[in-house]
Amino acid sequence: MASLDEVCQKIGYHFKDSELLTMAMTHRSFSAVNNERVEFLGDSLLNMIIAEALYLRFPDVDEGDLSRIRALLVSGKTLATVAVEFELGRFLRLGAGEKNSGGQRRASTLADAVEALIGAIYLEAGFEVCRERVLAWFAPRLVSLNPDASHKDPKTRLQEFLQGRKQPLPDYQLVETAGADHQQTFIVSCSISLLKSSVSASGSSRRKAEQAAAEKVLLALKEIE
Amino acid sequence: MASLDEVCQKIGYHFKDSELLTMAMTHRSFSAVNNERVEFLGDSLLNMIIAEALYLRFPDVDEGDLSRIRALLVSGKTLATVAVEFELGRFLRLGAGEKNSGGQRRASTLADAVEALIGAIYLEAGFEVCRERVLAWFAPRLVSLNPDASHKDPKTRLQEFLQGRKQPLPDYQLVETAGADHQQTFIVSCSISLLKSSVSASGSSRRKAEQAAAEKVLLALKEIE
Repeated sequence: MASLDEVCQKIGYHFKDSELLTMAMTHRSFSAVNNERVEFLGDSLLNMIIAEALYLRFPDVDEGDLSRIRALLVSGKTLATVAVEFELGRFLRLGAGEKNSGGQRRASTLADAVEALIGAIYLEAGFEVCRERVLAWFAPRLVSLNPDASHKDPKTRLQEFLQGRKQPLPDYQLVETAGADHQQTFIVSCSISLLKSSVSASGSSRRKAEQAAAEKVLLALKEIE
Repeated sequence: MASLDEVCQKIGYHFKDSELLTMAMTHRSFSAVNNERVEFLGDSLLNMIIAEALYLRFPDVDEGDLSRIRALLVSGKTLATVAVEFELGRFLRLGAGEKNSGGQRRASTLADAVEALIGAIYLEAGFEVCRERVLAWFAPRLVSLNPDASHKDPKTRLQEFLQGRKQPLPDYQLVETAGADHQQTFIVSCSISLLKSSVSASGSSRRKAEQAAAEKVLLALKEIE
């Protein structure tokens, strides 16, 4: 394993407790004392810190879209790219079998290590320092976010997809409303010329059902493309 | 709506910004300015605060069990009972229809209001004050937790269930292992005398697959009981 000082350099936080850092860098295949528990803690911190950042950054975006943007930011894929930027693979302590099978390049192992580091920084330095670090790591990704562009809602994305292909716009139909007056479920179908059958989805409002149906259609289009 | 001072009394936190508290108590059926966004924030805080409390309280419990205990503590059901203790239903601002259909007693609405309060306290007073409040609200529930009793793992619960009914112990069989050497998926079946067919489940280790299978059997037993 490369020196732990190097990890600290890369992540911009200097651990006083080298055992804590070592634990965060230890995969379960290496030792019973590993990063799984501290990763559980780090995962919840990451979710919270990103939730707040998005809440403050996008005052007009509703909670459904906030949640969708967050899911992108804290996905295993994004975390693995953060880990690659820090070259965490070089510092991970893996069991022999895990090492031989390329565990230090495995996206899930790398993502877990990032979350473990977040948990470890919190345990040593507290919330404010941890948040400051996470926001610094995610700054380029947070800055480039635009909820009106890459994170448009599914209906908008579907419309633009069809317009780009000179196709007619989707047709949304209310199929059914079920449930008591003020706790209704709406079922909406969405038909487009590119798909033979229409796709239905439900939601707690007509708008939400339409968005869910559009999302399903987008998925179906991905499959046939 | 009853006076907001009363809410502050009940929850043990006095909001300086009464608009923030009002927003947290406002259901989407009442106004476009409602508690949905701040609930998104509060949800992530609650998850994090409980994750930390469990991490510190149970140093020997693995992340799977921590996650399971947390799911219980932050469930809609638990949050609704917290809301009932605070009598939040009396303070909620609901649209007319929602009010007439008993929205102030709806578990999901009550649970959302608790999460919204957590988010609002954080926004006004910061992390430490918010954590201190949440831990105070959950203290009785955290104290009564015993991961060796009510939160035993599924295999243990299934075994005890069967022993209590003088039934033979479950039979776990490894059905299949799939995937590359160090990223295997294990498929395990679990048979018990009370169910005609065996139940299968998968996991990243044999132990995890067995636990998942036991959990499925417990669910199936609940359905036939």
